[in-house]
Amino acid sequence: MDRTKRNERIGAMIKILSDTPNRVYTLNYFSDLFGAAKSSISEDVDIAQGILERFSLGSLETSTGANGGVKYVTFADPDASKRFIQEMCIRLSDPDRILPGGYLYIYDILSNPSMVARMGRIMAQWFYRTRPDFVVTVETKGIPVALMVAQSLNVPLIFARREARISDGSMVTINYVSGSSHNIQTMSLPKRSIREGQRALIIDDFMKGGGTIRGLMDMMREFSVTVVGSGVVISTAAERRLVEGVRSLMVLHHVDETTRRVEIRPSQYI
Amino acid sequence: MDRTKRNERIGAMIKILSDTPNRVYTLNYFSDLFGAAKSSISEDVDIAQGILERFSLGSLETSTGANGGVKYVTFADPDASKRFIQEMCIRLSDPDRILPGGYLYIYDILSNPSMVARMGRIMAQWFYRTRPDFVVTVETKGIPVALMVAQSLNVPLIFARREARISDGSMVTINYVSGSSHNIQTMSLPKRSIREGQRALIIDDFMKGGGTIRGLMDMMREFSVTVVGSGVVISTAAERRLVEGVRSLMVLHHVDETTRRVEIRPSQYI
Repeated sequence: MDRTKRNERIGAMIKILSDTPNRVYTLNYFSDLFGAAKSSISEDVDIAQGILERFSLGSLETSTGANGGVKYVTFADPDASKRFIQEMCIRLSDPDRILPGGYLYIYDILSNPSMVARMGRIMAQWFYRTRPDFVVTVETKGIPVALMVAQSLNVPLIFARREARISDGSMVTINYVSGSSHNIQTMSLPKRSIREGQRALIIDDFMKGGGTIRGLMDMMREFSVTVVGSGVVISTAAERRLVEGVRSLMVLHHVDETTRRVEIRPSQYI
Repeated sequence: MDRTKRNERIGAMIKILSDTPNRVYTLNYFSDLFGAAKSSISEDVDIAQGILERFSLGSLETSTGANGGVKYVTFADPDASKRFIQEMCIRLSDPDRILPGGYLYIYDILSNPSMVARMGRIMAQWFYRTRPDFVVTVETKGIPVALMVAQSLNVPLIFARREARISDGSMVTINYVSGSSHNIQTMSLPKRSIREGQRALIIDDFMKGGGTIRGLMDMMREFSVTVVGSGVVISTAAERRLVEGVRSLMVLHHVDETTRRVEIRPSQYI
């Protein structure tokens, strides 16, 4: 490859690193790719880091030693995140979203790629320092946001199913009690998807009584796995909870079918 | 903001544009963000485009007029994609993946964020010119890869459910026949998730007889929506199909429980 200019190297480096957050690339990788000396690559990394920080686009972390190199760490700018979650609350407060039974239509928000990507980055940042080995959720609506959290942390996503399927091989199945409706429910996970001693981050779309999160915690115990944190997109206020310490992006205070009012606000973590 | 240097502007611009593929940013947006003249921004775009092309990292498309600006278009380098799919075939050929009944364990591949991101980019490129308004799939295992296709195309993901849920509001439900097992199955989509006249791209994880894809096509007809294309991660060979023209990344030729051999190869589209 012909000699590369600094702005070429920096542009390509930022793209490559940010495409796979939390994955370490050696300086030799870039040195080979760009046909440039390692000392130049080191300077490039410093400049790239300055650019990302200046525009609140993330950061680079460098490490030394045998497995040393540089990786991209996602960053959700606090002010921009706050505005984003506030806008989402306004959108979700639309009375047209009120469904029979006092449910709120959130399906579109939870499967919009750019929205779940932003939500995922905020949640990934909450739990980055807990070093999970995987993200776990239950099908179905939490999968998109959980996938985005997993992508930001560069770990696999694992999703429990409501029914065991023959095409997933041997499964571990547990029964749990829904925290709000007190129904008995079932979830199953492929036996080989998790190894003993790993660290799990639980992500889900909606928490009312906390029964599903509690079920996931029980499931993780079956696998001898440590739960390092739990996060949901929306939690409801003023509900007795089966679990503590679950972070949410938004808190749903009230859905009134008669007055057609929805009260949903950013959580204390935003 | 202080004056920005060219390499700062280019690095930040590549990051911002590639974070949201297929979304148009005006030159004024960057001009304001960087405190630079529009003529400089225009030159930055040209340089950024050169960098992305040189390293096969995607491309920029510029448009003029009232809604004019610049957008990032994902690109999957053909050689790199071929190597990636070949490696995936090797991984999937592991005899330990053979499940009772001749099924293949693919769960881990389909929920690995960096793998589904790469698969999603390849599939997005196949269908980019068909300009879909949304991507549609059926729960559950196809959701991660379908979300990544949707992200690359900057369109919503819509997923049908096996059972209608009260929390999704009014649903359209259809029955369809599985192409391989001939069982009657059901899928439901929220009524308000789709508008008449839109263009749908169907993405799923696995196609055997094609019954699910056919079901999704029938469902789209219920919504008066045009199907612009269909893609799956793995299709099986030598099976009578209910549908034609479905692209796949890999073709599964054979799973033999006795000899413990799996034969899976990149498709003709790779």
